[in-house]
Amino acid sequence: HAHRTDGVDKNVWVEFTKLAADYKAVNLGQGFPDFSPPKFVQEAFCKALSGGPLMHQYTRVFGHPSLVKSLAKFFSRVVGREIDPFEDVLVTVGAYQALFCAFQALVDKGDEVIIVEPFFDCYQPMVKMAGGKAVYVPLRPKVESGAVLTSGDWVLSPEELSSKITPRTKAIVINTPNNPLGKVYKTEELQMIADLCIKHDMLCISDEVYEWLTYDGAKHVKIASLPGMWERTITIGSAGKTFSATGWKVGWAMGSGNVIKHLKAAHQMSVFDCATAAQEAVAQGFEREYEVFGTPESYFKQLPAMLQHKRNKLASCLQSVGLQPIMPEGGYFIIADISSVKVNDQSTEEEPYDFRFVKWMIKEKGLATIPVSAFYSSEHSKEFNKYIRFCFVKEDSTLDAAQDILRNFS
Amino acid sequence: HAHRTDGVDKNVWVEFTKLAADYKAVNLGQGFPDFSPPKFVQEAFCKALSGGPLMHQYTRVFGHPSLVKSLAKFFSRVVGREIDPFEDVLVTVGAYQALFCAFQALVDKGDEVIIVEPFFDCYQPMVKMAGGKAVYVPLRPKVESGAVLTSGDWVLSPEELSSKITPRTKAIVINTPNNPLGKVYKTEELQMIADLCIKHDMLCISDEVYEWLTYDGAKHVKIASLPGMWERTITIGSAGKTFSATGWKVGWAMGSGNVIKHLKAAHQMSVFDCATAAQEAVAQGFEREYEVFGTPESYFKQLPAMLQHKRNKLASCLQSVGLQPIMPEGGYFIIADISSVKVNDQSTEEEPYDFRFVKWMIKEKGLATIPVSAFYSSEHSKEFNKYIRFCFVKEDSTLDAAQDILRNFS
Ligand SMILES: CSCCC(=O)C(=O)O
Ligand SMILES: CSCCC(=O)C(=O)O
Repeated sequence: HAHRTDGVDKNVWVEFTKLAADYKAVNLGQGFPDFSPPKFVQEAFCKALSGGPLMHQYTRVFGHPSLVKSLAKFFSRVVGREIDPFEDVLVTVGAYQALFCAFQALVDKGDEVIIVEPFFDCYQPMVKMAGGKAVYVPLRPKVESGAVLTSGDWVLSPEELSSKITPRTKAIVINTPNNPLGKVYKTEELQMIADLCIKHDMLCISDEVYEWLTYDGAKHVKIASLPGMWERTITIGSAGKTFSATGWKVGWAMGSGNVIKHLKAAHQMSVFDCATAAQEAVAQGFEREYEVFGTPESYFKQLPAMLQHKRNKLASCLQSVGLQPIMPEGGYFIIADISSVKVNDQSTEEEPYDFRFVKWMIKEKGLATIPVSAFYSSEHSKEFNKYIRFCFVKEDSTLDAAQDILRNFS
Repeated sequence: HAHRTDGVDKNVWVEFTKLAADYKAVNLGQGFPDFSPPKFVQEAFCKALSGGPLMHQYTRVFGHPSLVKSLAKFFSRVVGREIDPFEDVLVTVGAYQALFCAFQALVDKGDEVIIVEPFFDCYQPMVKMAGGKAVYVPLRPKVESGAVLTSGDWVLSPEELSSKITPRTKAIVINTPNNPLGKVYKTEELQMIADLCIKHDMLCISDEVYEWLTYDGAKHVKIASLPGMWERTITIGSAGKTFSATGWKVGWAMGSGNVIKHLKAAHQMSVFDCATAAQEAVAQGFEREYEVFGTPESYFKQLPAMLQHKRNKLASCLQSVGLQPIMPEGGYFIIADISSVKVNDQSTEEEPYDFRFVKWMIKEKGLATIPVSAFYSSEHSKEFNKYIRFCFVKEDSTLDAAQDILRNFS
């Protein structure tokens, strides 16, 4: 076999999703809603399936025409510039494949990519598979007056970031709202990154799959909307996260046609095109959201309002049982400090503490989460292995079951 | 951008599908049915979509459990051995992504892959993207008593094939029934290839997406079912071609778990998992076909019977207008000889004759096909550029419209 897949065969989702299922644990691990997408997209999907023979056949390789048009229309308004549906948009098999195409299209052997930690875990093996070298810069908690309480207190040091840039640096990858931390980058923070991209001629891969999910008034800002950044940003989005339909596997990459064309080549060679009817349904979803944008009917308003309640519910429970949460400003997850709970587990000492803790919790307590050091390079994982990640995008009954388990921890 | 995508940005499907649409041509180009999948899978898809929240969310990374189980059950019977659903099967985003995973998993920089010509065009850029070197061996028409009439008359020379094997040869790629030729490999032909695979320790990538579509009693044989070949064959299949639903984008790779595990790593890094509800529908389809296998109710019997009529209809029309068809034993396509029609076209002389012919036919006559030299390496394309490919998997009304155009060719 080929060497590019060496060392990328382990996967935290495969491992912990299976473990959770094997132990029938309450699953706050992998990030997906255990509720349904909104009626209007579900109905659009069914309608598309009965929309005649061509809804069951191949569509345009780079995106179903109705979908690229609705995405361009919708995001033109968000970014504040014209977006060409046929040049600037690529529909992918979830945001995941958009990331894959971005790395395949941009990274040659020996190229460097800066990844901000904590990071969605696939960035690392994807850079490796493309022959590149990942370079890591952690967000660090500003410890001022004791306890760190929100994801906004975790910040990038401009000096540390700059020090990692070399002539081989091709791109920097950010994720806002961040998985697993929930940090929503502020305009000033994005501007600092943008300045470095422009100064050092780097691209920015901005993973914004949780773009609508911000809480307590935090505002998601697109780095692509900052001056000079449209040309050098690949913005990645997800219908799965946008419409609570992770199993539909529709995502996209958006940016200047000059950059997106290279992702198109990688896409054309890896999957060819994406499923037609699902794309049509997502297109209908965006058309609907375009019409109701900013009104109380908007799912992009309703969903974060609903999730904010769920976040609060889980956060207070974690707090009350002594698992200090870092309150997230956005996204699907809360990370919480496990230092106060001591576990006498049987597993090997070679594993990081958070991995051992999560396995113990699944097996002994029937509650599944994800160890946060999975979102760090080996370089920094030791510094951050006192956290585990909880997904709160679940039915209240699921959260209640988790709460019952947590309350009986002792 | 990265060099791996250099020279793979052109794509015959993107080019000719767009040209056909721009000129509103009758489209016998890209291979997809313009009719619907059978009711039982359509209904299974709709039912899956109303099957509760989890049908809209992520499923198992390497294949939805119900689908890998039905595939393993169904193909165990075909191959005549136990197939492990969780080890030996990988569900992919169409057969296309299965091919991509196979090349990514097996081919390192400098490795060689033998491709039999004519070949489904993506093999070539996929090998290139993996850093490998494609080596070509053409099927050649046995010219005995003049006109070559069927795809079965096109054969591989064992000597020519052997002469291409080097210590760097990793795999040989075959496609049976073949696209574009329609050849269905006979057991003796497969045995010859199997012997070479075993002798030279090569793998066989066997693209069998048209496995159910054979005509006039031709029998599809799986090379994986020959002695000693299960361990060294990756068999690739397609729900799109099996159930006339190319837009669902469900395919698979099957083989020994020791080989498939490397494809799994590539899959996990490129798309993660596949759409849940579509997989559930395909699983239902295979369960249904398992029950009715060999009976007149079987879609795997009904579809080829229907397509044989369509093939015959188009072939006699081509014959009658002097475009001598090579009668296919299987698949979606007929290739036909265009030597007798002289075209006074305006386009550049640098393009191969069949490309010019096809463009002329789309623009001037309103009928779209695909030039056959697109399925050859540059090494051999000149020898075979007197053919164009027609897809006959179309409504009779579409074929009638094509026929009207062809009859007025003069
Ligand atoms: C595609 S991996 C699973 C979902 C996810 O984004 C997460 O849990 O972090
Ligand atoms: C995925 S490409 C289009 C379909 C096909 O297989 C063909 O036309 O040859």
